[in-house]
Amino acid sequence: MKVLYIAPVGSDVYLPARAEICERAGNAGTAIDIVSLPPGRPTHVEYHAYEAMVLADVVRHSYAAANKYDAFIIGCFYDLGLREAREVSGRTVVTAPCQASTSIAMALGNTFSILVGRRKWIPKMTENVRMYGLEHAMVSMRAVDLGVHDFQSHAESEDRLMETGRRCVEEDGAEVLILGCTAEFGFHEKMQDELGVPVLDPMLSALKYAEMLVEGAQRFGWYPSRKWGSEAPPEEEMAAWGLFDREPPTGTFIEAGSLASRSLAKKIPAE
Amino acid sequence: MKVLYIAPVGSDVYLPARAEICERAGNAGTAIDIVSLPPGRPTHVEYHAYEAMVLADVVRHSYAAANKYDAFIIGCFYDLGLREAREVSGRTVVTAPCQASTSIAMALGNTFSILVGRRKWIPKMTENVRMYGLEHAMVSMRAVDLGVHDFQSHAESEDRLMETGRRCVEEDGAEVLILGCTAEFGFHEKMQDELGVPVLDPMLSALKYAEMLVEGAQRFGWYPSRKWGSEAPPEEEMAAWGLFDREPPTGTFIEAGSLASRSLAKKIPAE
Amino acid sequence: MKVLYIAPVGSDVYLPARAEICERAGNAGTAIDIVSLPPGRPTHVEYHAYEAMVLADVVRHSYAAANKYDAFIIGCFYDLGLREAREVSGRTVVTAPCQASTSIAMALGNTFSILVGRRKWIPKMTENVRMYGLEHAMVSMRAVDLGVHDFQSHAESEDRLMETGRRCVEEDGAEVLILGCTAEFGFHEKMQDELGVPVLDPMLSALKYAEMLVEGAQRFGWYPSRKWGSEAPPEEEMAAWGLFDREPPTGTFIEAGSLASRSLAKKIPAE
Amino acid sequence: MKVLYIAPVGSDVYLPARAEICERAGNAGTAIDIVSLPPGRPTHVEYHAYEAMVLADVVRHSYAAANKYDAFIIGCFYDLGLREAREVSGRTVVTAPCQASTSIAMALGNTFSILVGRRKWIPKMTENVRMYGLEHAMVSMRAVDLGVHDFQSHAESEDRLMETGRRCVEEDGAEVLILGCTAEFGFHEKMQDELGVPVLDPMLSALKYAEMLVEGAQRFGWYPSRKWGSEAPPEEEMAAWGLFDREPPTGTFIEAGSLASRSLAKKIPAE
Amino acid sequence: MKVLYIAPVGSDVYLPARAEICERAGNAGTAIDIVSLPPGRPTHVEYHAYEAMVLADVVRHSYAAANKYDAFIIGCFYDLGLREAREVSGRTVVTAPCQASTSIAMALGNTFSILVGRRKWIPKMTENVRMYGLEHAMVSMRAVDLGVHDFQSHAESEDRLMETGRRCVEEDGAEVLILGCTAEFGFHEKMQDELGVPVLDPMLSALKYAEMLVEGAQRFGWYPSRKWGSEAPPEEEMAAWGLFDREPPTGTFIEAGSLASRSLAKKIPAE
Amino acid sequence: MKVLYIAPVGSDVYLPARAEICERAGNAGTAIDIVSLPPGRPTHVEYHAYEAMVLADVVRHSYAAANKYDAFIIGCFYDLGLREAREVSGRTVVTAPCQASTSIAMALGNTFSILVGRRKWIPKMTENVRMYGLEHAMVSMRAVDLGVHDFQSHAESEDRLMETGRRCVEEDGAEVLILGCTAEFGFHEKMQDELGVPVLDPMLSALKYAEMLVEGAQRFGWYPSRKWGSEAPPEEEMAAWGLFDREPPTGTFIEAGSLASRSLAKKIPAE
Repeated sequence: MKVLYIAPVGSDVYLPARAEICERAGNAGTAIDIVSLPPGRPTHVEYHAYEAMVLADVVRHSYAAANKYDAFIIGCFYDLGLREAREVSGRTVVTAPCQASTSIAMALGNTFSILVGRRKWIPKMTENVRMYGLEHAMVSMRAVDLGVHDFQSHAESEDRLMETGRRCVEEDGAEVLILGCTAEFGFHEKMQDELGVPVLDPMLSALKYAEMLVEGAQRFGWYPSRKWGSEAPPEEEMAAWGLFDREPPTGTFIEAGSLASRSLAKKIPAE
Repeated sequence: MKVLYIAPVGSDVYLPARAEICERAGNAGTAIDIVSLPPGRPTHVEYHAYEAMVLADVVRHSYAAANKYDAFIIGCFYDLGLREAREVSGRTVVTAPCQASTSIAMALGNTFSILVGRRKWIPKMTENVRMYGLEHAMVSMRAVDLGVHDFQSHAESEDRLMETGRRCVEEDGAEVLILGCTAEFGFHEKMQDELGVPVLDPMLSALKYAEMLVEGAQRFGWYPSRKWGSEAPPEEEMAAWGLFDREPPTGTFIEAGSLASRSLAKKIPAE
Repeated sequence: MKVLYIAPVGSDVYLPARAEICERAGNAGTAIDIVSLPPGRPTHVEYHAYEAMVLADVVRHSYAAANKYDAFIIGCFYDLGLREAREVSGRTVVTAPCQASTSIAMALGNTFSILVGRRKWIPKMTENVRMYGLEHAMVSMRAVDLGVHDFQSHAESEDRLMETGRRCVEEDGAEVLILGCTAEFGFHEKMQDELGVPVLDPMLSALKYAEMLVEGAQRFGWYPSRKWGSEAPPEEEMAAWGLFDREPPTGTFIEAGSLASRSLAKKIPAE
Repeated sequence: MKVLYIAPVGSDVYLPARAEICERAGNAGTAIDIVSLPPGRPTHVEYHAYEAMVLADVVRHSYAAANKYDAFIIGCFYDLGLREAREVSGRTVVTAPCQASTSIAMALGNTFSILVGRRKWIPKMTENVRMYGLEHAMVSMRAVDLGVHDFQSHAESEDRLMETGRRCVEEDGAEVLILGCTAEFGFHEKMQDELGVPVLDPMLSALKYAEMLVEGAQRFGWYPSRKWGSEAPPEEEMAAWGLFDREPPTGTFIEAGSLASRSLAKKIPAE
Repeated sequence: MKVLYIAPVGSDVYLPARAEICERAGNAGTAIDIVSLPPGRPTHVEYHAYEAMVLADVVRHSYAAANKYDAFIIGCFYDLGLREAREVSGRTVVTAPCQASTSIAMALGNTFSILVGRRKWIPKMTENVRMYGLEHAMVSMRAVDLGVHDFQSHAESEDRLMETGRRCVEEDGAEVLILGCTAEFGFHEKMQDELGVPVLDPMLSALKYAEMLVEGAQRFGWYPSRKWGSEAPPEEEMAAWGLFDREPPTGTFIEAGSLASRSLAKKIPAE
Repeated sequence: MKVLYIAPVGSDVYLPARAEICERAGNAGTAIDIVSLPPGRPTHVEYHAYEAMVLADVVRHSYAAANKYDAFIIGCFYDLGLREAREVSGRTVVTAPCQASTSIAMALGNTFSILVGRRKWIPKMTENVRMYGLEHAMVSMRAVDLGVHDFQSHAESEDRLMETGRRCVEEDGAEVLILGCTAEFGFHEKMQDELGVPVLDPMLSALKYAEMLVEGAQRFGWYPSRKWGSEAPPEEEMAAWGLFDREPPTGTFIEAGSLASRSLAKKIPAE
């Protein structure tokens, strides 16, 4: 199965690490490509205006790669564009980190906490959890005062996540922890060893969730609904406007995973 | 006070009518400018992918006109980009049709129904009402099977709205009706005369709501919060990326309202 | 436009100050009258039994002045009698401080806190916020341990509001603050200067909200619904019982605002 | 135990029937007095303005009879004044028909419907059910188009209740029915025989609920809380205002039940 | 009336004390039998797996004693088996401690806290409160770090309950306290004397609630619904499977209360 | 990976079909064993009392096979014993049909309907969906008036499911359909072909969800939480009571799937 991880940022700083992690994490038959946006796009989307500036690109990638991949993963814990990208994804299933990791959390315990970077993120992420119907199970969302680009470079990252995670468990009653940023990779194993509760890495959650959805699609025909609110826009209208005439803006493109034939990469040239 | 109505579509077909309506509807001191997007952008945003394609433009207009206007109105009942536009609006308040009309509805009755165009729109609009916390008061959302561009051209528009509105009142128990599309203008007066309940035009609701917010801002300093989730992105970062270096893409720009000096128009040249 | 502010208390101690504030705060065309109840009525309504003792008077004023004013404001953050007064207000719109300020808060930020006087008030005010559907956005309601009549006379009022407001912002994550008593006037400007978030005075919120509703009524015919739960009682029945035969009990009556002809005052003589 | 049923209306038309029913329905040791308001008060409270006109009287009776009775029942399915009356009831517990019957319904089945008189009543009664937290269990609230004074005099009352109740069960999935007006007495037995589900008479529900609360109070000291929102107003303040100096306005007073010594009646003379 | 208290544990250590308390607490006409499970069953059900091991026995007792008792009380604050036992209880009403005490709490105050033994219990008990629709009124659930069998034997039990109850009232705003375990008996009186709020013992709450339901059943025919989700399984099917052929496993059986003829005890022999 | 499907019924009538379906549906590396309960246990669990009679067996199988399998699937759309079985499952993850299929539905569309057998099932299944936080997305739950054992034998099963599914889509607005019984297998493909929306078979959903959870467990250490409400009971206590001394009662045991070495079967002998 072929999965496209769409990193909605104009930065490839985390891409090689992501590729390596995904390569190890994917199933035997899973090939994961990772694509980022070109320079000039925001290098992170902590602000909602930044999300707005890259949303169209996420949809462009979704439209361009629809039916060419089995699944898309939207690489941001805001789950930005999940609804919009799925609308034009054809038979390609789409998931995102918050949706996937909260779903998994509910299967592993009664309550969870989310560890985010900045307090900035909390209102929208809280709203997303409420939108997903899981606010009753989220006992806290706590910020560690680190930005997207701090997690992998800041000496204190691990200490802060560990200490804040401990408070979520001990003070707030969390039975499961969720790392609320796709840049919070590399921490979950040590955290769960030390804290004694499952700690969900959102990128890995999304990958496994995507693989499950693809299984459903391939074996049972469970493709995204195209009815009512999920109806796709008419092809003629999009063509008339030339809405997706240009190739989707692409920064770096990395092939990970283990699939033998990788002809797909050519389909998505850089801008 | 100066209000900018941002029509997030690459079409100016409704703009002259809007301008005329707004001119009559605004307060004595209210000047309303209306701006649309250039050709090539979707001429309606019934589909979420279309929303995605224009969201950045909404934010661009918000950023470019921040502090130059007193209020922005986002001209779509999906309230698209409300959060994102407000983030970069500086001291300019921002509102949108669904937020404004549901708020007014709650002051006029106990329950309301929303009359939308197509069933396509229902899931996201229902989610928005739920996000605003008002699902307990919405007794129904019904579609009349007309698209954005049908309302003003379809012979049956009024009949369908009238008949569906009657069902909302009589069968569903609505005490107030909301027209769920900014293209549903020109109908509310006859409908409320005949149906005997207030019928809210969302563009007009948004205009009055905007005027109220501006009053609060000008007199009492109630500008948009810039704390936590409402924090604006840092200017340096946006500048470094050149995020808003270009003028916002503009289709038609119309000045409505009664303000004497209208120097602002020059600030927003067409693309 | 003519607005009647109904102070549901048998005390005029705050009335001159209110009048002065309203006079400055109203729009150019807004005339605001303020009426209180006669001595012997509770001088504050912190207790629900006190609310009960003045509720009929609120309704009496609403019935007596229906259609003579454009809007009524119920001068208590419990929003006491909002439903009941609106039922007999004819074409006069009715609003109240909690409804108005929470609505405005939702347009300025993602979250809010309410600063009330005593813990006594918290359960009912919390219930009101829940009834309005906004409990998801209220991150805290905190009491400053001051009664209605303490706010303007207590040396520490400002300090306590400032300190408690700071905790709401910093500890609870409030992006907007609401002062939860109409006696908490005179504080919002300094608070927002110092705390850096909008601080909503509930009387001023209600005034601006009322002006908006009147605009809707006058221009678009958006009068209070009279359907289903909003149906008014039959005139004959009220007349047969002599329900509103007596003039509404009136304490002090003050004209504020800027409207030229003020013939209305004669209509509401003291008891 | 002594229970006071407060009929918040200026009409005694149903009082003898109520007394007879209560006499049969009360426990061996339960004495039930029924008090109504004097002529001139609304003879029914279908409208919220009417509720407002009698609310103070409900509180006056509560204050006057506090600690003299073991329980008060507020005789209206709007549960009008439940909060306010309980605030000044001292150690007398207070209940009301909607609270009591919905609580009992939840113990007898998974879902319930409420059969009200007019559609007028539905929004407020729905809000009450939501306030009590039971909207998830209420599968419908249906009106039979009869007013308070129609139920006992209308030839079709039983037929309409039966037919509407059947629809609640068969179409809406109700497992329990609640009669949503204290004037809907005399119907429940035949209805439940025919419809095969429990049909709760709200007056009887309230009586049994009151007896239970009195048991808790007398045996275990479970009197109404007087903490935080339940704090009673200070006696000195009420005395200074003369708030409850006059006897509560009384229409008819009937003693029902089986208690031997009935000296209490003298305490509540007619107005 | 005859009430069966089903202690769903293989331990009779608390039974004599329960019997004595129930004997004092029941109404004049109430006879309370208490039955426990035989040795080998869990002696407490703090863990959900333990609940699972005794649930069938609860249902067996319910089926065996259906219509022979007027009410069953399920003796565990998890309200374990309430739905299941009621399904086969015939005309016997069924209640349980959490359902009963939260219902009573809502009649005595605006908010409540629950004092449980261990943090282990919190997620499921919180879910139960949410299922009952009362999460809006529960301001906290706090554990005192004592197990079921510690409450009556631990020197610090009273101190911990008192101290934790005080925090619930003072810090969390509870107006009513609920003891969240049927083993927390013997504490409520001293607690409410000292803390000044009603403190509900769950066993006593359930007893009074059961008596109320029996009153409704006996006088008004309000037996458990047998419609839709409350439909009982078909007798033939149960007989064919021999589902309830054996007597329900019984440990100790104690007769409490004051009913003269106690022939029922013979009906439920020990296993 | 090894998955144990626990059919909580004393019937093996569907087991061969299930085995065949699972064998085809599982991943290459997935071996699925299916175990049922011995004769005498209910052959279906449509009634909650029947659930009660088999719950302990579900837990016994969970305890006995803990850590020997990678995942358990509880084979009933009531998700019976999910919480209880997971408590003693050690490192074995546990899922169930309703949890799995509603989670997948949320990834494929905005709304879903559930097609159940009898109206009997609706209240509890509705409560489960509410418990999972997804009631906002469930637009309807409809019964086709077929019992568990009718689906595979009734001539009209397919017609009824098709017709009812069509109403869910067309009238209720469902974008995804869920078959609400594990006996509704064999229908989903034809239904989705004809109705044009994804139709989720709950057994297959659970299987894929289980495989995803196992991936998380094996690769990332995401085992079930053992903290707070998820804490397992102490081994010593269970041993002292002999709680799980006996082998779990077993009816038929079938090995499906493709795993080479199948030594596990011996571990779970028939009763």
